[in-house]
Amino acid sequence: MTAAADKHTSAFPRIGVFDSGFGGLTVLRSLLAHIPSAEYFYLGDTARLPYGSKSQATVARYAVESAQLLESYGAEYLVIACNTASALALDAIRSAARVPVLGVIETGADSAADCSVTRDVLVLATDATVQSHAYRDACTIRGLRGLEKACPLLVPLIEEGWTAREVEKNSAVTRQVLRIYLDEALAQAKARGYTLDTMLLGCTHYPLLRTMLEEALPERMTILDSAETTARRVRQQLAAGGRLSSVTEEDQSRCHFFATDSVEKFRTLGSRFLGQPIEQVNLIDLGG
Amino acid sequence: MTAAADKHTSAFPRIGVFDSGFGGLTVLRSLLAHIPSAEYFYLGDTARLPYGSKSQATVARYAVESAQLLESYGAEYLVIACNTASALALDAIRSAARVPVLGVIETGADSAADCSVTRDVLVLATDATVQSHAYRDACTIRGLRGLEKACPLLVPLIEEGWTAREVEKNSAVTRQVLRIYLDEALAQAKARGYTLDTMLLGCTHYPLLRTMLEEALPERMTILDSAETTARRVRQQLAAGGRLSSVTEEDQSRCHFFATDSVEKFRTLGSRFLGQPIEQVNLIDLGG
Repeated sequence: MTAAADKHTSAFPRIGVFDSGFGGLTVLRSLLAHIPSAEYFYLGDTARLPYGSKSQATVARYAVESAQLLESYGAEYLVIACNTASALALDAIRSAARVPVLGVIETGADSAADCSVTRDVLVLATDATVQSHAYRDACTIRGLRGLEKACPLLVPLIEEGWTAREVEKNSAVTRQVLRIYLDEALAQAKARGYTLDTMLLGCTHYPLLRTMLEEALPERMTILDSAETTARRVRQQLAAGGRLSSVTEEDQSRCHFFATDSVEKFRTLGSRFLGQPIEQVNLIDLGG
Repeated sequence: MTAAADKHTSAFPRIGVFDSGFGGLTVLRSLLAHIPSAEYFYLGDTARLPYGSKSQATVARYAVESAQLLESYGAEYLVIACNTASALALDAIRSAARVPVLGVIETGADSAADCSVTRDVLVLATDATVQSHAYRDACTIRGLRGLEKACPLLVPLIEEGWTAREVEKNSAVTRQVLRIYLDEALAQAKARGYTLDTMLLGCTHYPLLRTMLEEALPERMTILDSAETTARRVRQQLAAGGRLSSVTEEDQSRCHFFATDSVEKFRTLGSRFLGQPIEQVNLIDLGG
């Protein structure tokens, strides 16, 4: 490492971003836009994904191991860019970590509280996130009513790239699945007497469906994604702590990527989520 | 344990069945039909599924650990009821095990060789299985041409139960996805000049799609599933070794279930694959 690199490293905040896989790269993408002068350490625990179908005990164990690894790399701030881990393991991570930890669910619920006029919010998420009722509870303590809808087929459809408009027969399937989930959710809302005006994307994969969702919604509804709201929150907290670099030119950031499985797949699939090419990914072993 | 139970245990062959999850229960279901007088130990490594998206090194490590656990329970015969593990890790498991090991790919390819007249076989499988080209290679050495088609969305659709005819809007999505995959495969076959007369289900989940597949195929094609062919092979080999019990009444079998995550989910989802209720599942820790 050169002296210049050393100086660069020490001056910038070091932010650890953790997800079970690639989805959290949509959060990193927003972080890069909001905090360009930082050093990022992204860990995707790809050998053990998906967390969405696993129990609380298992998710907590995996997430704590990953958080500790990021701390050992010098991260002074941890972003849990994984809804399942935020839902099932945030307390466990906070107990184990010595640095501030931010989860996507709290920031998502905060932004819904800022946005909703009717106070009725629809949350789309994975099975495990819904079963934890972490969003419903986070909504309740903010005076909102949260209607949670599990959409387990969306992640595989997004990972297969069946969202690209160019391949009509494939994207038609995704639109159809979305239609089924939304109709079920809207019917539930009606039965409960909810007036939804805000939709919260409770899975970091879902921002890739944003356009399809906007087209599919039967009435005007504001769509909030946790990637965006989390990035804004991290920026605020760094600024409050005097850790926001005064250097604000673009391309000052540096990203280090770590994965627990198939570096090649991470590069290929991850670039789609990050919105830019991923050059180097380091394979690490968490012993799982 | 009573004396009667002891006698039961020692007289019957003890068969270990391993899969990353629930899919292998279709193989156990066939085993129970063909070899009712046996003691079965089924291990689903559910904390680390799906194997289909993981690298060879990781799959081999997981599979060897699981196989060794089944041996430690006294299994005298191991069935690797997981296509990904059979494709990527069979040699590693055989090196590590002291008992005979049978994988679903060899038995599937054998049955295709017995069945196909044109010698051109279509194999549907997961991404990782296709990328390993284990089926193509197994076909080649038997004088067949194997066309492998990756169908990554079928497992999530099956696990969500979107195959049930009762919910038309959901099963219509699965039929559409199947149509897309089959059309792509048949176009590839045409381009290569293959005359397919046999379809091999290269994933233990796929038997649950059998009826839909029969309806979707444009021409008469024999569908072979590895659950069925594997069970027949185990029976032959036990008979040859003099380990087939002379007791043949039904309900003589005994099944022990082990999972590395969410026992509740295993019971619920697993019963659908096994075709009968699963009473008790033991949670075990493979340290992953």
